[in-house]
Amino acid sequence: MAVNVIGTFHSKIGRLDENVYELLVQAGRGALEDAGVAAGDIDGIWIGNFSGGGFNSQEHLAPCAVDIDPALRFKPAVRVENACASGSAAIAAAKNAIEAGEAELALVIGVEKMTSLDTKGVTKVLAMASYWPEEGELGMTFPGLFAEYAKGYMEKYNVSAEELRVILAKVAAKNHRNAVANPLAQMPWECTFQDILDRPDQKNPMVAEPLRLFDCSLVSDGAAALVLASEKKAKELGLAQVELSALVHTTDYLALSKRSNSEFTAGKRAIQKAYELADITVDDLDFAEVHDCFTIAEVLAYEAIGLVPDGEGPRAIDEGLVEVGGKLPINASGGLKAKGHPVGATGVSMAVLAVRQLQGKAIGHQIEGAKVGLTYNIGGSAASNYALIFKRTK
Amino acid sequence: MAVNVIGTFHSKIGRLDENVYELLVQAGRGALEDAGVAAGDIDGIWIGNFSGGGFNSQEHLAPCAVDIDPALRFKPAVRVENACASGSAAIAAAKNAIEAGEAELALVIGVEKMTSLDTKGVTKVLAMASYWPEEGELGMTFPGLFAEYAKGYMEKYNVSAEELRVILAKVAAKNHRNAVANPLAQMPWECTFQDILDRPDQKNPMVAEPLRLFDCSLVSDGAAALVLASEKKAKELGLAQVELSALVHTTDYLALSKRSNSEFTAGKRAIQKAYELADITVDDLDFAEVHDCFTIAEVLAYEAIGLVPDGEGPRAIDEGLVEVGGKLPINASGGLKAKGHPVGATGVSMAVLAVRQLQGKAIGHQIEGAKVGLTYNIGGSAASNYALIFKRTK
Repeated sequence: MAVNVIGTFHSKIGRLDENVYELLVQAGRGALEDAGVAAGDIDGIWIGNFSGGGFNSQEHLAPCAVDIDPALRFKPAVRVENACASGSAAIAAAKNAIEAGEAELALVIGVEKMTSLDTKGVTKVLAMASYWPEEGELGMTFPGLFAEYAKGYMEKYNVSAEELRVILAKVAAKNHRNAVANPLAQMPWECTFQDILDRPDQKNPMVAEPLRLFDCSLVSDGAAALVLASEKKAKELGLAQVELSALVHTTDYLALSKRSNSEFTAGKRAIQKAYELADITVDDLDFAEVHDCFTIAEVLAYEAIGLVPDGEGPRAIDEGLVEVGGKLPINASGGLKAKGHPVGATGVSMAVLAVRQLQGKAIGHQIEGAKVGLTYNIGGSAASNYALIFKRTK
Repeated sequence: MAVNVIGTFHSKIGRLDENVYELLVQAGRGALEDAGVAAGDIDGIWIGNFSGGGFNSQEHLAPCAVDIDPALRFKPAVRVENACASGSAAIAAAKNAIEAGEAELALVIGVEKMTSLDTKGVTKVLAMASYWPEEGELGMTFPGLFAEYAKGYMEKYNVSAEELRVILAKVAAKNHRNAVANPLAQMPWECTFQDILDRPDQKNPMVAEPLRLFDCSLVSDGAAALVLASEKKAKELGLAQVELSALVHTTDYLALSKRSNSEFTAGKRAIQKAYELADITVDDLDFAEVHDCFTIAEVLAYEAIGLVPDGEGPRAIDEGLVEVGGKLPINASGGLKAKGHPVGATGVSMAVLAVRQLQGKAIGHQIEGAKVGLTYNIGGSAASNYALIFKRTK
């Protein structure tokens, strides 16, 4: 009895006029409308939000869900947080509530309003998702942490800085190109990897060696929402079309120093276990949305999902395996790199993108006949890892 | 098949030497040890924490649970937040996971380290649990919000300021007195209400009229933890003794201006529904731990739990109904007022206190023969409301 997704909403991503409350309300109303479900029939609301406190001085965001509709008054509403995987964490909690019989219909909203702070302020708030005493407090930022992965990867697989730079530029270019088709994307730019490599240093400066500006995802505002239903309820409503076939969550040490810097160790486990639960292999996937907070993360994700063996991630982009039309389109939406990355919303955004693909109503590139999709969402420097498999059931 | 509690831990509450990570690890290890369960047998970890970001610059606290024991590596760990009800929110999420069949054994930890900031800093972080645009941002604090309840109550029931002052002093005195028996309490002081009334103004200053210093709960560090088990697993382990018979969560508008300021409207609903689910009435309760963040909140809780009709809360304390030895001992532990209030830990603290009562191993006053207990935990100015019923089953 897998949980079904019967309604979705996805906001524009970028520097938006709406505040965090307006984004939340818009997303909740949008998903209810898409599902055609009355607010009064919803049994609970789960909010994925990383740091309403840090970005908007608003902790305790969950009760603001009542402002979506007065019929939600007195329903349970709760916030779930696991850094940039908060959206997936909210989906996981809502799924449990449905499987526990506590809810038949659940509203899940991912929301983040980041542009309320300047870049320096955002960087500081994000650093609180690292292990503060050994990372953030000592000045380590997320570009710095993912630069450690880039360096770890170069060392382990004997990849030169120049080789890696080209690979990463190819990832960035693919995602910017993919975003052109996505009307909600923050940076839909047609560009080639050579365009990126040719940029003068001041237009693609080093952020944390070897990562440059074009290797980094964006500071974004945005929200996305899902209506989840028990299989029984989805069938009753005649809306059983896409199911969440598996959701696996694994945790690793928060501090990167305590784990591998050349692979997503816990992420691999989550993904492999999700394949088992959904009774599929990587070959059954029609697409994946993965967590390219930095371009190196997407390369590591190619390996974590088993598209290519460890150490061969670069081949996946070099040979076009991950392009729309390739063996396994990855981040057809533009990814965090070009679609944008409103951090606490991202897991829900990925899920909405997957569901819309499977419904044949893609936001952006439609993968024709798509039946099975993966989302892989991480929090921190991949301490929190969520793998979700969605399937079209009719 | 009610979820069982098979292990507990409760730290000292106060200004502690341990940092937030140490408190978390200590609590997790303590509950595992109490249950006699190996860390490797735990299926997931749920953390209740209000604002690790605001108090400790640490969002994304959940992965730090791996530091409890290396056998927890790769298990799901997530933080759940609903202001001062974050602890109960974590229990709710873990309960759902067990009832969903996602976990047989769950570790729930509530933790908050508040004394890292000075009182001004703490007040500002706490204000982020109010509706920021209309409350916190305009200078409203939590003493101010609960002063609104005190004023609303006086107006609705025609209670004079002097009458209310005496009632509130009686609540404070009871809780300080109860705390004397609690070895973990922050302010275990023997005192009478007359002692409080006799204090000169500068030793009991007005904080937010009509609430004075002695009406306010404390700034605290502390942690508490539970091991939850499916009924089947608890029986297999020979540890089925206390069950969580009901947990009901209701939400109201975040802004106090949108709801009653003379009662806990959503709280009443949560408590009544919990009674129904547990098939009890208020008369079946042997004790209750309720959310006395301010003395007025305890008076409102007397009414919310149905011990006395609306408007007669003062009678419950005047007539001694809520004393240890009275009709329904309330906050026998000393409550938030004298035991202390490490905000994100409080819901778990209440649950531990309830379970230990039912096991006959009370922390502080033992209510002899106690079979049924209630915890009532709120977030914000009672926008988030959790009612839990615990029963001894053998």
